[in-house]
Amino acid sequence: MYYIGIDLGGTNVAAGVTDREGKLLGKASIPCPRGAEAIADAMAESARLAVGEAGLTMEQCASVGVASPGTIDPVQGIVFHAFNLGLDHVPLARMVSERLGGIPAYLENDANAAALGEFVAGAGKGKNSLVAVTLGTGVGSGAVLEGKLYTGFNYAAFEAGHTVIRRGGRQCTCGRKGCWEAYASATGLISSTRKAMEAHPNSALWRYAPTLEDVNGKTPFDAARAGDAAAQAVLDEYIEDLACGLANLINIIQPEVLCIGGGICKQGENLMAPLRAALGREEFTKDAERRCQVVAALLENDAGIIGGAMVPLYR
Amino acid sequence: MYYIGIDLGGTNVAAGVTDREGKLLGKASIPCPRGAEAIADAMAESARLAVGEAGLTMEQCASVGVASPGTIDPVQGIVFHAFNLGLDHVPLARMVSERLGGIPAYLENDANAAALGEFVAGAGKGKNSLVAVTLGTGVGSGAVLEGKLYTGFNYAAFEAGHTVIRRGGRQCTCGRKGCWEAYASATGLISSTRKAMEAHPNSALWRYAPTLEDVNGKTPFDAARAGDAAAQAVLDEYIEDLACGLANLINIIQPEVLCIGGGICKQGENLMAPLRAALGREEFTKDAERRCQVVAALLENDAGIIGGAMVPLYR
Repeated sequence: MYYIGIDLGGTNVAAGVTDREGKLLGKASIPCPRGAEAIADAMAESARLAVGEAGLTMEQCASVGVASPGTIDPVQGIVFHAFNLGLDHVPLARMVSERLGGIPAYLENDANAAALGEFVAGAGKGKNSLVAVTLGTGVGSGAVLEGKLYTGFNYAAFEAGHTVIRRGGRQCTCGRKGCWEAYASATGLISSTRKAMEAHPNSALWRYAPTLEDVNGKTPFDAARAGDAAAQAVLDEYIEDLACGLANLINIIQPEVLCIGGGICKQGENLMAPLRAALGREEFTKDAERRCQVVAALLENDAGIIGGAMVPLYR
Repeated sequence: MYYIGIDLGGTNVAAGVTDREGKLLGKASIPCPRGAEAIADAMAESARLAVGEAGLTMEQCASVGVASPGTIDPVQGIVFHAFNLGLDHVPLARMVSERLGGIPAYLENDANAAALGEFVAGAGKGKNSLVAVTLGTGVGSGAVLEGKLYTGFNYAAFEAGHTVIRRGGRQCTCGRKGCWEAYASATGLISSTRKAMEAHPNSALWRYAPTLEDVNGKTPFDAARAGDAAAQAVLDEYIEDLACGLANLINIIQPEVLCIGGGICKQGENLMAPLRAALGREEFTKDAERRCQVVAALLENDAGIIGGAMVPLYR
């Protein structure tokens, strides 16, 4: 049998079909409309397209697993709140199932699904446990522990982005002050870069981003490579904040692998080398024989699709 | 069958015998000697005494589980480092087994064992998952997730005391700066109290602790109850730091129950009421239907004995 995964994003609805090992056999993506019914229609349509791309029929597919943003109830298959999609208490699993001939449908949080995708077919393949951290607009995180997707007793677990590393610090969207997400997300890096530009009118940062609105996650890396001291200071601080939260997670969870994804990871070793050095100073197990491996995520945008597809097998 | 648990402390070696449900049927405690061989002798002796207290024979006992401080390898039954006991790479499980006629012996970290004890017979009885936090010289923590003791891939997991909540803050014994343990432990509270006394020569704190050496974890609570502003400020700050780390843990793990133990918990609702209020502001799930219950630990000093005894059943 084959497995359909759907990654519900604010911009696109992406679907794919995998085998039992999470190998992607076909995929399709269509723009995400507005409104619950239209979204469910788009999800069913993308699933049909992906099944066709894979050269399969719907009858050969055992299930569909949906990776959704926001807060969800995976047991009832309900999206409670996904504000960027305008969804509020929507029984999305049932709605997708109905549109695809009654196929069993599952729902999971998108950060959890991405972690599961990396565990089955990416950075955690063949390992016992994995934590996945995605550095984007926020800091997403999910975990597969002892071979099972970890969700906590109320399915709300692994909001590592909303752990405070600087008490009383930057205001976070969750209401706390000083959350890891406020510093380690791309948004946090952009915010720090803008502050540095305002403080340093002669910094080379202004060459890479002529206005503050032009700053993106790449800007400080580009300027630092050109030898700009203000940009390097922003990055040094960013790495320390990122490493702080990662070391916290490792000291609690000790997964076999921790993978980091998101646009900032395109920097490769420019990011990973100083990060590993910082972790070598920060981890409780820094001198231990068996340390958590910290690596880049492998599946990029496919992690949610593959993880969604694998949900029924790893719950 | 019955199960022997041994809690290896710096001062005493305490042993107990439980039934399959973790009910303590007899216990015994003797002073902890120095040296690996003498410690193993004392462990065997305390086990024999406890079995006698329970009115049982060694033949009726299935196993012995040892809760040890420091870093351990539970698979090989070796204590790698337990500095306060002077143990360094000691095969303690085998040494105890040999002294008790070859009975199967297990070894676990003491914070993990305490969490297991509370899960089986204390604050987490009948629940699916529990995190236990002990506020003492340090901040100990352990977790039972989905009915199994959680240790991470390298058996070093759940060092939540060594997660940074104030980056660049107080120096911690682990090498990091700003660890939760440096603020939320009894040691951290005592340190904050002493600083407040030095800053406030007229504070009532001096009535409860005539010299800085007299300060203990009770001092600020006593002075605050008497209306002292400096003591209240110390406690307010302490509660915020404690809640910060607890909310971090809850946001990651979402256990069904989180229990707090250690001497400071003798303050009861003086501690728990403001702590719950702070968590109500800090938790990611503060508005959710199903929230982690935060309660006082129930087993006090028996948690390690009971948890040790239960190790072979919950691994």
